[in-house]
Amino acid sequence: MAAIVFDRIAIIGIGLLGASIAHAVKAYGGANTVVLYDDDKRARDLAAKIVPGQIVDTLSETVCGADAVFICTPVGVIKQVTEGLASALKPGAILTDVGSVKAHAADGMMAAAPAGVHVIPGHPIAGTERSGPDAGFASLFQDAWHLLTPATDQSDDYQAAVNQLTRFWQQLGAKVEQMDPQRHDRVLAITSHLPHLIAYNIVSTAYDMESVEDGEVVKYSAGGFRDFTRIAASDPVMWRDVFLANKDAVLETLGRFSEDLAVLQRAIRWGDGDTLMKEFTRARGIRKAIIDAGLDTEEADFGRRSTGQDD
Amino acid sequence: MAAIVFDRIAIIGIGLLGASIAHAVKAYGGANTVVLYDDDKRARDLAAKIVPGQIVDTLSETVCGADAVFICTPVGVIKQVTEGLASALKPGAILTDVGSVKAHAADGMMAAAPAGVHVIPGHPIAGTERSGPDAGFASLFQDAWHLLTPATDQSDDYQAAVNQLTRFWQQLGAKVEQMDPQRHDRVLAITSHLPHLIAYNIVSTAYDMESVEDGEVVKYSAGGFRDFTRIAASDPVMWRDVFLANKDAVLETLGRFSEDLAVLQRAIRWGDGDTLMKEFTRARGIRKAIIDAGLDTEEADFGRRSTGQDD
Repeated sequence: MAAIVFDRIAIIGIGLLGASIAHAVKAYGGANTVVLYDDDKRARDLAAKIVPGQIVDTLSETVCGADAVFICTPVGVIKQVTEGLASALKPGAILTDVGSVKAHAADGMMAAAPAGVHVIPGHPIAGTERSGPDAGFASLFQDAWHLLTPATDQSDDYQAAVNQLTRFWQQLGAKVEQMDPQRHDRVLAITSHLPHLIAYNIVSTAYDMESVEDGEVVKYSAGGFRDFTRIAASDPVMWRDVFLANKDAVLETLGRFSEDLAVLQRAIRWGDGDTLMKEFTRARGIRKAIIDAGLDTEEADFGRRSTGQDD
Repeated sequence: MAAIVFDRIAIIGIGLLGASIAHAVKAYGGANTVVLYDDDKRARDLAAKIVPGQIVDTLSETVCGADAVFICTPVGVIKQVTEGLASALKPGAILTDVGSVKAHAADGMMAAAPAGVHVIPGHPIAGTERSGPDAGFASLFQDAWHLLTPATDQSDDYQAAVNQLTRFWQQLGAKVEQMDPQRHDRVLAITSHLPHLIAYNIVSTAYDMESVEDGEVVKYSAGGFRDFTRIAASDPVMWRDVFLANKDAVLETLGRFSEDLAVLQRAIRWGDGDTLMKEFTRARGIRKAIIDAGLDTEEADFGRRSTGQDD
């Protein structure tokens, strides 16, 4: 039997993540009733056809009576959404989100949520480059980390709410950990936000060169570059909000990146092969750490043609 | 029946590509006899156990009587290797390579090859991040582009040699096209060389932050970043040589990349969401062009967890 953690949950924003929560609950349990809302009517209409749950037309209908509310919108509107639903929240309800930036999300929800509601920001490290209600699927959270960044002064009630939310995400297949929100934002700046910014940027640079080289950039685009274009296909609104909300950590990380890149650039210009060798060899260390940690396998990559060495 | 294009071929350098040619010939034909050499004795010993073909101990034995010689070494030693084997080359033989930089490879081979030998530089747009004799596999070139950058003043004999080499690569499954070497190097600078440099650099930056963040960079590394570490696991020697040999095109492309990145950096610093939206939306255009050209599919990516949107 699927374990029920909440009687009723509300999902605000029916994109990849919101729709995936609904599919996952249907597949693995965790809640009896799922109510969903999106402020885009087209998203609601599409969701009504394909997303399991009850689609409603107002924010307050969505959260009314909900034991847990999941804000699955872009990070930039979390505070505004919280203001819109605050008065309809049930006392003792859990308010959480799935945003990629946690300090900002926490501030927004805390500022706008009424007393007696347990604000527990969260972030599933899971996604694809697809977006919209039709991008959701049940197994998205399986074996993925789910990071919660709860408040530090925890009452017993709050602690119980954190435990309950943890069980819910575990029911959906996630590995749940707690983390300090500022640390979360620094770590994600390098593991996720900067890579996405770089992917957008390199694809944009290539786009300009495409016309110069008569379409041959796309035609001969090889594995490494195609991976970048896939990353750069992600939802622009979501990522705009991430970069604006995690500005300090992203700029700090980008500064380090640019310093390091200047070293490589200078080595290329001056034909300094020793520096290139040293830096390229060093980069292998972190790959090894990832494989040693069981986070990826060498074997799984073996058959991946045209990603890597001689593209 | 497997079509035979050459009676005897020689492969210099038994890494991913050299070993893969031998495996592909065994699987799909193209030559009766394959002779291989590597100046690293350990590579020869390993290859003798696992790579189909005759492993010999000297350059001259390798190329003696060969109808086509494939230099599969890092780009930086192509000229030196050509000098070492020049006197043993059969008159009328084809001399080709598989390097990722073509103007430099062409210059090196042309300068050192004797008259009467047909120098036809080539580049299979195929690879994995693995290296060494044990990384080779037969299907590496299937459906991959193979770009030839032949000389422009073509005698009938030379043209016949180009046709013969084209048939050989087609036999191994490749789609063969001809291209100007300088244009090749500009196009590959953006589609392959810059993405690899960026991947090395971002992984290197992360490596430094790993210690600052107590191992959490590796632990929570998500899809986008893990793709970068995979790319950065490629052979450092090969890539050092690529960047040194394609210096001008890489520096030009890197200059454009850095200009574009500065625009995004400034937009983040000043909270200019409109510029971010514009640039991110633009990047989607090239992704669409790749999908429209049938070079990748949306569907295939759908199940790829944790690459993209909300990592």
